[in-house]
Amino acid sequence: MAAWGERLAGVRGVLLDISGVLYDGGEGGGAAIAGSVEAVARLKRSRLKVRFCTNESQKSRGDLVRLLRRLGFDISEGEVTAPAPATCLILKERGLRPHLLVHDGVRSEFGQIDTSNPNCVVIADAGEDFSYQNMNKAFQVLMELEKPILFSLGKGRYYKETSGLMLDVGPYMKALEYACGIEAEVVGKPSPEFFKSALREMGVDASQAVMIGDDIVGDVGGAQRCGIRALQVRTGKFRKTGKRKRRVNLGPAHYPEVTSDNIWGSPFQMFRV
Amino acid sequence: MAAWGERLAGVRGVLLDISGVLYDGGEGGGAAIAGSVEAVARLKRSRLKVRFCTNESQKSRGDLVRLLRRLGFDISEGEVTAPAPATCLILKERGLRPHLLVHDGVRSEFGQIDTSNPNCVVIADAGEDFSYQNMNKAFQVLMELEKPILFSLGKGRYYKETSGLMLDVGPYMKALEYACGIEAEVVGKPSPEFFKSALREMGVDASQAVMIGDDIVGDVGGAQRCGIRALQVRTGKFRKTGKRKRRVNLGPAHYPEVTSDNIWGSPFQMFRV
Repeated sequence: MAAWGERLAGVRGVLLDISGVLYDGGEGGGAAIAGSVEAVARLKRSRLKVRFCTNESQKSRGDLVRLLRRLGFDISEGEVTAPAPATCLILKERGLRPHLLVHDGVRSEFGQIDTSNPNCVVIADAGEDFSYQNMNKAFQVLMELEKPILFSLGKGRYYKETSGLMLDVGPYMKALEYACGIEAEVVGKPSPEFFKSALREMGVDASQAVMIGDDIVGDVGGAQRCGIRALQVRTGKFRKTGKRKRRVNLGPAHYPEVTSDNIWGSPFQMFRV
Repeated sequence: MAAWGERLAGVRGVLLDISGVLYDGGEGGGAAIAGSVEAVARLKRSRLKVRFCTNESQKSRGDLVRLLRRLGFDISEGEVTAPAPATCLILKERGLRPHLLVHDGVRSEFGQIDTSNPNCVVIADAGEDFSYQNMNKAFQVLMELEKPILFSLGKGRYYKETSGLMLDVGPYMKALEYACGIEAEVVGKPSPEFFKSALREMGVDASQAVMIGDDIVGDVGGAQRCGIRALQVRTGKFRKTGKRKRRVNLGPAHYPEVTSDNIWGSPFQMFRV
């Protein structure tokens, strides 16, 4: 435990990923990960500040928080940093009118945004709405623009639902990038701007924060590039090395790793909360 | 014309792309490009050998040839080099059993292939069948394999139908590559093996052949890397530089370019046929 104490010295705030760390989505809203409801409650009773830093882009923040509260979590909308509201700010600042390729569940977040005569495309984790027809429409809008602008709400490869691994927005972002010969602007983890806004909202410096997530690139790598310490849980999309189960999501080898099977289990005392 | 005469000196065989060069697909089978039916007839009456080198992967060779004959072209199945039959040869050689993410129209080409208990994935231009569900299934099959193998029948970005630009298989190949952290094996243009097999079937050396296509990467670049001269037509997916129409599909700047608006028009005499 001494090693953990050293590694976490000076931590004043905890950034928590949601999907794969607090719960796995799926049929009927999904299921809380063992120990996570209690862990959040314990963190909130402690001296540490807590903020939820998610790339969830299928649901509005309101719907996400309602779902998590139903699963027993102590969480409110104001505690969540999510890519859809961040994207709306950027669109307004730059006077952009998006063609939206997003899940119906998150469309309400864009209610105040002018989508007429689009001059950019916004894609999010659209799930079943990533049909050929919808992808082709987004592609055609981009190809008609003199300077095609594509925003992607996160660039995750996949996530885990209770029924198995599911393609995230990242692969579809790559598809449109390749089709149009462009590079997307990513809003969400691992974008440094996104981590910085989460820190600002929590009122804690990078050096005083720790990010806990299941994605070695989006959560761990992204946080570390901002000077935030990071821990990878072994739940969610985390996959053990083994004969049949490769760890595809490896990333740079020097990332630290939580040594317990579940960070919400017995070694929770590493936070000394 | 002198310049063209020099450039085409010693040509004994012509490799012809099909989509965007001979015809544009679309409603009711599509439409022949002006001048192309006559151009093929003229080439066939000449001393030049002719072979059709296509990445068409929505239709079987039989269906493609029937469609082209209906449009007036002089073409037979034995004159066509296409990626589906080439893939079947590779699968048999390597003892691979594919999960197929392909259009129903090309499925018959894989009729003799064992698809039980798949140990690789084959994707082709599946069109509307590139649903989220089908993409996710292909992704899950790959993630279950110890050494995921993905074959892509071509890697084109898009093609032109009479109704507009349409996403080709390439963007979906990129999506699965990114999702799984792997690199696909491309069967079709611009793969050198594919061009070599077309040359072999035509009985002409690389230095004696010219490839005519509308894709600067798949047709022109691919052929040139094999030592085959290449010409880009200004039909099909070719897009002029302009204020609103960017030439996205640029590729290396040193590729030669056909200077007429349509290679099948008046400067056809450059072939001296």
